[in-house]
Amino acid sequence: MEKFTKKQQIKELKEGDLVNDIFVVKIKKSIAEYSKGYFFTLILSDSSGGSIEYKYWGDSEQDKVQAIYNLITADSVVWVKGKVSSYQGKLQIGNSDPNNLRVLNQDEYECDFIAGPKKDVEEMYTTLIGKIDSVKNDDLKKLLLDIFNSLGDKFTQHPGAIQIHHNWRGGLLQHTLEVIDYCETSVKLFPELDRDLLISGALLHDIGKLEELETTSRIKGTRKGQFIGHLTLGIIHVADKLKDSSLDDLLKEKLLHLIVSHHGELEYGSPKKPMFAEAVVLYFADQLSSRASEIIEFIKENKDATEDDSMYHRRHSTNIFLR
Amino acid sequence: MEKFTKKQQIKELKEGDLVNDIFVVKIKKSIAEYSKGYFFTLILSDSSGGSIEYKYWGDSEQDKVQAIYNLITADSVVWVKGKVSSYQGKLQIGNSDPNNLRVLNQDEYECDFIAGPKKDVEEMYTTLIGKIDSVKNDDLKKLLLDIFNSLGDKFTQHPGAIQIHHNWRGGLLQHTLEVIDYCETSVKLFPELDRDLLISGALLHDIGKLEELETTSRIKGTRKGQFIGHLTLGIIHVADKLKDSSLDDLLKEKLLHLIVSHHGELEYGSPKKPMFAEAVVLYFADQLSSRASEIIEFIKENKDATEDDSMYHRRHSTNIFLR
Amino acid sequence: MEKFTKKQQIKELKEGDLVNDIFVVKIKKSIAEYSKGYFFTLILSDSSGGSIEYKYWGDSEQDKVQAIYNLITADSVVWVKGKVSSYQGKLQIGNSDPNNLRVLNQDEYECDFIAGPKKDVEEMYTTLIGKIDSVKNDDLKKLLLDIFNSLGDKFTQHPGAIQIHHNWRGGLLQHTLEVIDYCETSVKLFPELDRDLLISGALLHDIGKLEELETTSRIKGTRKGQFIGHLTLGIIHVADKLKDSSLDDLLKEKLLHLIVSHHGELEYGSPKKPMFAEAVVLYFADQLSSRASEIIEFIKENKDATEDDSMYHRRHSTNIFLR
Amino acid sequence: MEKFTKKQQIKELKEGDLVNDIFVVKIKKSIAEYSKGYFFTLILSDSSGGSIEYKYWGDSEQDKVQAIYNLITADSVVWVKGKVSSYQGKLQIGNSDPNNLRVLNQDEYECDFIAGPKKDVEEMYTTLIGKIDSVKNDDLKKLLLDIFNSLGDKFTQHPGAIQIHHNWRGGLLQHTLEVIDYCETSVKLFPELDRDLLISGALLHDIGKLEELETTSRIKGTRKGQFIGHLTLGIIHVADKLKDSSLDDLLKEKLLHLIVSHHGELEYGSPKKPMFAEAVVLYFADQLSSRASEIIEFIKENKDATEDDSMYHRRHSTNIFLR
Amino acid sequence: MEKFTKKQQIKELKEGDLVNDIFVVKIKKSIAEYSKGYFFTLILSDSSGGSIEYKYWGDSEQDKVQAIYNLITADSVVWVKGKVSSYQGKLQIGNSDPNNLRVLNQDEYECDFIAGPKKDVEEMYTTLIGKIDSVKNDDLKKLLLDIFNSLGDKFTQHPGAIQIHHNWRGGLLQHTLEVIDYCETSVKLFPELDRDLLISGALLHDIGKLEELETTSRIKGTRKGQFIGHLTLGIIHVADKLKDSSLDDLLKEKLLHLIVSHHGELEYGSPKKPMFAEAVVLYFADQLSSRASEIIEFIKENKDATEDDSMYHRRHSTNIFLR
Amino acid sequence: MEKFTKKQQIKELKEGDLVNDIFVVKIKKSIAEYSKGYFFTLILSDSSGGSIEYKYWGDSEQDKVQAIYNLITADSVVWVKGKVSSYQGKLQIGNSDPNNLRVLNQDEYECDFIAGPKKDVEEMYTTLIGKIDSVKNDDLKKLLLDIFNSLGDKFTQHPGAIQIHHNWRGGLLQHTLEVIDYCETSVKLFPELDRDLLISGALLHDIGKLEELETTSRIKGTRKGQFIGHLTLGIIHVADKLKDSSLDDLLKEKLLHLIVSHHGELEYGSPKKPMFAEAVVLYFADQLSSRASEIIEFIKENKDATEDDSMYHRRHSTNIFLR
Repeated sequence: MEKFTKKQQIKELKEGDLVNDIFVVKIKKSIAEYSKGYFFTLILSDSSGGSIEYKYWGDSEQDKVQAIYNLITADSVVWVKGKVSSYQGKLQIGNSDPNNLRVLNQDEYECDFIAGPKKDVEEMYTTLIGKIDSVKNDDLKKLLLDIFNSLGDKFTQHPGAIQIHHNWRGGLLQHTLEVIDYCETSVKLFPELDRDLLISGALLHDIGKLEELETTSRIKGTRKGQFIGHLTLGIIHVADKLKDSSLDDLLKEKLLHLIVSHHGELEYGSPKKPMFAEAVVLYFADQLSSRASEIIEFIKENKDATEDDSMYHRRHSTNIFLR
Repeated sequence: MEKFTKKQQIKELKEGDLVNDIFVVKIKKSIAEYSKGYFFTLILSDSSGGSIEYKYWGDSEQDKVQAIYNLITADSVVWVKGKVSSYQGKLQIGNSDPNNLRVLNQDEYECDFIAGPKKDVEEMYTTLIGKIDSVKNDDLKKLLLDIFNSLGDKFTQHPGAIQIHHNWRGGLLQHTLEVIDYCETSVKLFPELDRDLLISGALLHDIGKLEELETTSRIKGTRKGQFIGHLTLGIIHVADKLKDSSLDDLLKEKLLHLIVSHHGELEYGSPKKPMFAEAVVLYFADQLSSRASEIIEFIKENKDATEDDSMYHRRHSTNIFLR
Repeated sequence: MEKFTKKQQIKELKEGDLVNDIFVVKIKKSIAEYSKGYFFTLILSDSSGGSIEYKYWGDSEQDKVQAIYNLITADSVVWVKGKVSSYQGKLQIGNSDPNNLRVLNQDEYECDFIAGPKKDVEEMYTTLIGKIDSVKNDDLKKLLLDIFNSLGDKFTQHPGAIQIHHNWRGGLLQHTLEVIDYCETSVKLFPELDRDLLISGALLHDIGKLEELETTSRIKGTRKGQFIGHLTLGIIHVADKLKDSSLDDLLKEKLLHLIVSHHGELEYGSPKKPMFAEAVVLYFADQLSSRASEIIEFIKENKDATEDDSMYHRRHSTNIFLR
Repeated sequence: MEKFTKKQQIKELKEGDLVNDIFVVKIKKSIAEYSKGYFFTLILSDSSGGSIEYKYWGDSEQDKVQAIYNLITADSVVWVKGKVSSYQGKLQIGNSDPNNLRVLNQDEYECDFIAGPKKDVEEMYTTLIGKIDSVKNDDLKKLLLDIFNSLGDKFTQHPGAIQIHHNWRGGLLQHTLEVIDYCETSVKLFPELDRDLLISGALLHDIGKLEELETTSRIKGTRKGQFIGHLTLGIIHVADKLKDSSLDDLLKEKLLHLIVSHHGELEYGSPKKPMFAEAVVLYFADQLSSRASEIIEFIKENKDATEDDSMYHRRHSTNIFLR
Repeated sequence: MEKFTKKQQIKELKEGDLVNDIFVVKIKKSIAEYSKGYFFTLILSDSSGGSIEYKYWGDSEQDKVQAIYNLITADSVVWVKGKVSSYQGKLQIGNSDPNNLRVLNQDEYECDFIAGPKKDVEEMYTTLIGKIDSVKNDDLKKLLLDIFNSLGDKFTQHPGAIQIHHNWRGGLLQHTLEVIDYCETSVKLFPELDRDLLISGALLHDIGKLEELETTSRIKGTRKGQFIGHLTLGIIHVADKLKDSSLDDLLKEKLLHLIVSHHGELEYGSPKKPMFAEAVVLYFADQLSSRASEIIEFIKENKDATEDDSMYHRRHSTNIFLR
Repeated sequence: MEKFTKKQQIKELKEGDLVNDIFVVKIKKSIAEYSKGYFFTLILSDSSGGSIEYKYWGDSEQDKVQAIYNLITADSVVWVKGKVSSYQGKLQIGNSDPNNLRVLNQDEYECDFIAGPKKDVEEMYTTLIGKIDSVKNDDLKKLLLDIFNSLGDKFTQHPGAIQIHHNWRGGLLQHTLEVIDYCETSVKLFPELDRDLLISGALLHDIGKLEELETTSRIKGTRKGQFIGHLTLGIIHVADKLKDSSLDDLLKEKLLHLIVSHHGELEYGSPKKPMFAEAVVLYFADQLSSRASEIIEFIKENKDATEDDSMYHRRHSTNIFLR
């Protein structure tokens, strides 16, 4: 069976277009009555970043409409045939034929609804392997290779966050390399730093994100991630690998400390504050990469959405200047 | 070789007594000159809770005095012979004979400098095993038995904290049972609670303290504990055991969440806040046991030490009434 | 005159039903013009927990419609006759006859719009009296009997809060007994506690809620409660009773301190932090009862309202897992 | 029997002076041995603000020295005969005759160890009565007269705090008038304010200090004050008087709210934040009087005690400039 | 050309009125399609404090409607001709003739959309000059005269804030005088205060608001104000004037400190906390004026807008009582 | 006249040495009596980081000793002749000849008591000039050259802080370059950043430290710095230079914003939070340089001072691991 693929981006649809394509269901609204029977509304999205309202105008057989409705959940991928019209100044897709709406299984379509990487993934991965290779302590290097080799593509394809910064395929890898760059600058400025330890910590600090985030038709938090958090999931992952490692105890503990303290403060979710120089550097390097990226993406996303010069940013709790 | 044992409690020493006994070095003060040569001062303690100053009056051969001095560290156990005198209203032990001061190895003495249990340890342990036995989910019961059986005596002898509350042999066990008691009351009041889950969480919540605290000649924090903390050490311990368990994933994650959230707030060291009823109950049950114990011990310790009606308590940041 | 009683629960109404029943006005929306004259909208509720929109379609005589409208206020109890129809997928009651809408005085209906007790009130009250009876200090027992006897049914029928936890008739009594149960467990674990004092404090700690909350057609805060708060209102109540009591001064002051400090921290509204063990225990016992109840009720209320696994809880400022 | 009176101020003592006077024991140090027997040390103070060390050189009969020692407590008033000498650059009074040291009962001396008023008390009281007289609501005026008449001299002689600001006889009266002055300015600027209410609140806001502070040989907090606090003690006082008042309920509640909210924020000990304009004004008027006074007294006290330009102020957590 | 002037206040418009007047565009909503072409919506306001919806019903020539739409921005002043109708109970102005809507340049109308002063500006200014004149230090008086003379009308016409308190012409002047009044009361109560310094600080403390706020068709924050803040802008202004002043250095620094510390706490935006008595007084005097005014205006604005007795105030984070 | 120079470092003094050298008076203790007259004690320090007690044993002519004593203040540079002895295990310098102690004026000695630069100052300055030269906007480059040229050596010799990090000659320059290095890494990673603006902000962000700190015989805060702070002093400095600059207004405001917001949060002393990406980067770059340096210096200073593995760090409020 041929798989469905994506052809039309929502952002390019206009009145009168005929739609025959696949979308992600972003929001599913409740079913209701109208003059000819029952209807429901979906908000559809795709990786273009746009979204469009979809109306299913069913007939008076409530059970049948309800049956279709029940198949759909938020995050469903649907194939949709219909026509784009304009209502109250906004575009919408309308349809009344049950054959023109279908919920797809994951093996029925071939499409990535997650935004693609911003830098070349292979190049980034080569850089990352080079960083591992530059670690002088052989036991440490072995541990890192062991961890990253067993991850395969998983690490390189993973996003770094759900929203705003590094929320694209390869985002985790890109963020990790940015943190490493700030660490390298630190090693250059402060030769007292243990480069092996610092680079290893930078490589591993967000490894728990592999289990905290999942990418189906969108990036979302896992149940495990909500319950335990990427910081602790990373600890479990690395502690397990350390069991068979011949690294000396102090180094093992310092490595775990780098992960456990990388949010810097208890109120940011680190059960321990940084207790040596490498941990302090890793905390601020992580901040620099994520905060700088966050503001830059925020400005990009919002500067065309408003005529105002600035917009309030909740997490930073200040207005951000957009010009 | 016969081992040294403890015979005289510091709290019972009086002027003129001849001392011939073993003590812990609580504080080691710096070496200094006096009219006849070099001397140094130690503060000695024992499990009576008292402490006494010890003066070693060496001769003018600086190297020799220094050599003796260097052998001693804080927490050393020493055998001491000397006489109790009174100086400026305080008792002290004086000695000038190098043969009358000796640092002991762990196999040279038989004495526990940690305060003993406040309740019968065997009885408490029987209660604890009974609690495990009352868990209805067989996989969960198996996990708990597996964990506690592999710990042996370690769990029953461990203190619950360094200072103030449950800081005695068996303190961890006693605290665990107190928390369980509050959980049992909760189950009685709120039948919606999952008793299996809650009791299991209570049993395991402080298991990381086994690696966070160590008892040599006193209770002290381990390096590992300082770097990683008992909450995360407990997670590593339990996550390792869960790897081979046939418990379903949701229960595994809930169990880890109970440990990870049992400090209740991020600023108290929990990277996640309690997300379901059992986690909320465990947090407050833990607080009730530790805070009540803390105040009761604080009053006991201090009410005879002052004529004032109340005394400032740093951790509670308020005056505590002592009468 | 026969009184109106409640017959139809909102949660069970369906399209086409004829309504002839009494309801509480939850929200009163502003009056407006339509093709045939003036109309207004009410949101009606009852103790089933449901709510339904009500439309009064008046004629073109603005004064008359306004006159009816002016009689109604939020919390009014109204008798309503009309038909249930469906509009935009939601049910509503419509009516255009001024004789079919009437605001009732309190003596015109017999109906309790507050949710009923979750446990048997008489049984609970017997338990409470038993607790008073178990107090050994006769002066203290006399004081407690005096206070509770003079309250009559008022205490047993009162809710414990406006929202979420113990917000039902008898909720205050139930909460008080839950707190006492945690205190009893504490007394068993810590024999150093003064049981008489602790149980008395538990019995009285929320007595100010009698003046802070009132139950008309719903539970709401009184003006007095907003201005002064239940903690201080409780103090005024008890201090007044203590004036004629022969209790010794220290016990009087400790009793007042238990009330004044039972929120535990200044920022939670206690002008004094707990200064002795019984006050610390009461604070956490109160927390355990209210927080556990709060989460359990939150999950019950919301688990069917969403397909999501978790929902944000403002007061706890975290997601609560609903499954 | 003639009473002892105060003749020599500590601040004026100099080496060689013979002392024959009464003092307050500020600190009592522990008893100790010396070459000829047992001695102990006291720190004596008087209302001059100075303090001096006192040495009692007892003989070798330990019991007798101990007996004298046991009679003395902190805050004892003692009659002392001895000679001022200088030791290590500091003055001290020495004595070895048991007949030259005596603890006095309250009826054996006539001396006020508390600093005297800074303004004329009668004038201030006349002003206060004038303020009551200016209240237009007769019920309110009656209430105020009733309260202040039943206090007699108690109010006019009371200090306003233990330390730093208004900690002198008449300090409470002076502070109350300062607060009223800021309120009067507010009434002039904002005619919307209810002057009757505001002035009454200002008059009563700190009335609980009468029970929170006591002046024996020094100003100190009462047990009642520690347990309940002046804010709540004031509420109890005023609520009791309001029981028989014919004031309307809203005014009664507003008056209590003014007291309950006058610390402005929960974390400063107010269980309710100010909820109307008069309460907001009272809060800041109270702050202005106390904070301004606090800094001015701090500078006066410390500017001659250091050569530095500034000194750290704990409560303000900043350096205060002294020049 | 004759200028447009304001004739009809929004608050007095009623159904059927013909409108021919000027308004400020408060909000501009997006353009949309309707049956006959394209329409857009504006929310218009004027200094009466009211607002009304305006509908422009364009024809099917999208470009033309868009062209008109593009000329308008939020804060535009427009001349509008149309008829008031009622829709869903709310008034609106409708128009479909392009000649009846026109965006005006600043020189085409004569109207002040900012609320007028609440007190006589000339009288207030005379008072302010009198305050300057009362400064005894001639260099300081010269500096103040120099600053205020060079400002001309700018200072007297300026509002004190964007919202709620002193947000009217002359508001800055009125607030400044209120602060001075509290300072004068302080000087009377505490003769230790340096009146010259305190009055000068009060006069200058908010001078940076001249650059932080601007009044076009409404009061709004400038870009400069958002980036730098009125506190720092005031510092730049005064520091520049101080360069040529012959005041001694200590006085110059104290004056700048008064401005830099007048928000009292770091978290309120003062990079330094008050370090001497005058700075403490200025901080609380500023609070008294702004907070009292804020609550009084809040009650005035909201008491008729709700039937509830109280309303939540975000900045004070408490309910404010409105009756 | 030949100037005094430094010859003997305190850290190298040993018992019996004859001292004839210059020192800084770190602490001046009060004068006191002894058997032969009056004596006083000084604590002397030098740039070796060590300190030693100095005893002046005066004769019985109190006035003369007092006269010498009065000449000395903390931070005085003194010439001292005396002998090193050992007392209670600590070294001290003793002297009884008034001719052997002399307070020096600044022109009487040639010695730098401040620690010297850690990197080559000329090289660093060349790098800094290179950074200015790399700015592409000519107006901005001109401004920077103008500012740094007018500072001369002042900037290159200045320390970066009083304590712990960059508290040495050239420390401000070194810190500035470290911040720039982190900014350069940021520009490489995020090409969206305006490099000209960011580098300029980095160059100027701490320029106010030139007026906040002064180096006499030690690094200390100026009165001006205490009152106004380096952040605001930097603003005054740069705002003055900007008056005549032809830079466009937006860039001027952004530059001032970079300085005003570089502490990142209001509670850290920034009256405005960072509002665009360059400001966010500068804040964290500043943190990385100062925090990393702070921890590294803390470990260096303390690791030999204790046998413990870790030591509490007040500013970081955590234990720092020293091994």
